[in-house]
Amino acid sequence: MSPEREDAGSQVSGERGRLIALEGIDGSGKSTQTALLARRLDALATWEPGATALGRELRRLTLSPGPDDAPVARAEALLMAADRAQHVVEVISPALDAGRWVVTDRYTGSTLAYQGWGRGLDVDGLRRLARWACAGVEADLSVLIDVPVEVARARLRAAAPDRLESLDLGFHGRVREGFVALAREDPEGWAVVDGSASPEEVAESVAEAVRTRWGRP
Amino acid sequence: MSPEREDAGSQVSGERGRLIALEGIDGSGKSTQTALLARRLDALATWEPGATALGRELRRLTLSPGPDDAPVARAEALLMAADRAQHVVEVISPALDAGRWVVTDRYTGSTLAYQGWGRGLDVDGLRRLARWACAGVEADLSVLIDVPVEVARARLRAAAPDRLESLDLGFHGRVREGFVALAREDPEGWAVVDGSASPEEVAESVAEAVRTRWGRP
Repeated sequence: MSPEREDAGSQVSGERGRLIALEGIDGSGKSTQTALLARRLDALATWEPGATALGRELRRLTLSPGPDDAPVARAEALLMAADRAQHVVEVISPALDAGRWVVTDRYTGSTLAYQGWGRGLDVDGLRRLARWACAGVEADLSVLIDVPVEVARARLRAAAPDRLESLDLGFHGRVREGFVALAREDPEGWAVVDGSASPEEVAESVAEAVRTRWGRP
Repeated sequence: MSPEREDAGSQVSGERGRLIALEGIDGSGKSTQTALLARRLDALATWEPGATALGRELRRLTLSPGPDDAPVARAEALLMAADRAQHVVEVISPALDAGRWVVTDRYTGSTLAYQGWGRGLDVDGLRRLARWACAGVEADLSVLIDVPVEVARARLRAAAPDRLESLDLGFHGRVREGFVALAREDPEGWAVVDGSASPEEVAESVAEAVRTRWGRP
């Protein structure tokens, strides 16, 4: 499955599209919210890692490595950045250039929160890495779907018990702190939504954050 | 890399090993020279990309991609950097820490020459990327095995005709220029050896470049 690439001309011709990133820990509900927001905006819905053919290989290497090939922290960050570089060139930039809005499930914020706060790599180095990888295609708005780790854990227990093992509370607690810190230090670039509510209520809050900036949807 | 740093208590046991990188275009003979130099120094011989389990996957993705997953230029540079990050942690640093010398067939110079001069990416950005990926484990000496592209081409025609297609003269001419420029701007960190001579003569020149710096082999 690749992100759909048709309908690129549905927006006002001439104007470049906007890039909105939904960020949060596993179990925050951001994948559902990405789909809901994209539908409301008639935007392209996409995700990281793994939205390109190369990205699918990198997703496997980072999320389901074999016994011997688990990447070290810096390699993991670089593979995520490679996924993003490919994603920008193949999927995001063509849509934006055609005037289409794009909603992505994870973007630069995830690199900073997971590899910085989560794995302990230097955040300034990661910032430069992320900026270089995306070649200037930054998110116009990042929306943090914020939930306590315990809420995410309870959701995953119900929906995907096989993924529960991977939800280490200490690690994901640090990642959540990272997202909150990123949003706090850049209130222009970030909005924070309480992800504990029902999907419909969260969707309304996300849409409101977008509407506040651009008058739509 | 400055001579003053090597001065005083050199060759004391318990001392950290040295990292020597052999650089050059395909067909320059640097793989043969890596093996010969490592034998002379009783050093660990290694290579990029692909000296780790993860690296072998990345080597396949960068050098033999499928029809749909050829990496874009930035993704290629990031995958090479990921290979290096893993290589440093799994192979190079443990050897250096144990006092062993390491000879690697390609290192940071190849990123700068191939992705910078060859693919046209900004060299300063690549330099920062490469520095971050190796976490400070820089080559103590890089040796350029320099050959004209036509010589490399003739050698590959004889030894590996299936690889000839990939030796685009324009691209590899730029890569060679890159290596020469890197060596010229950092004469402390680089030595240049004429790779057109016989393997035995080249090996003698490489050993001489090492001997000039450290008094061995």
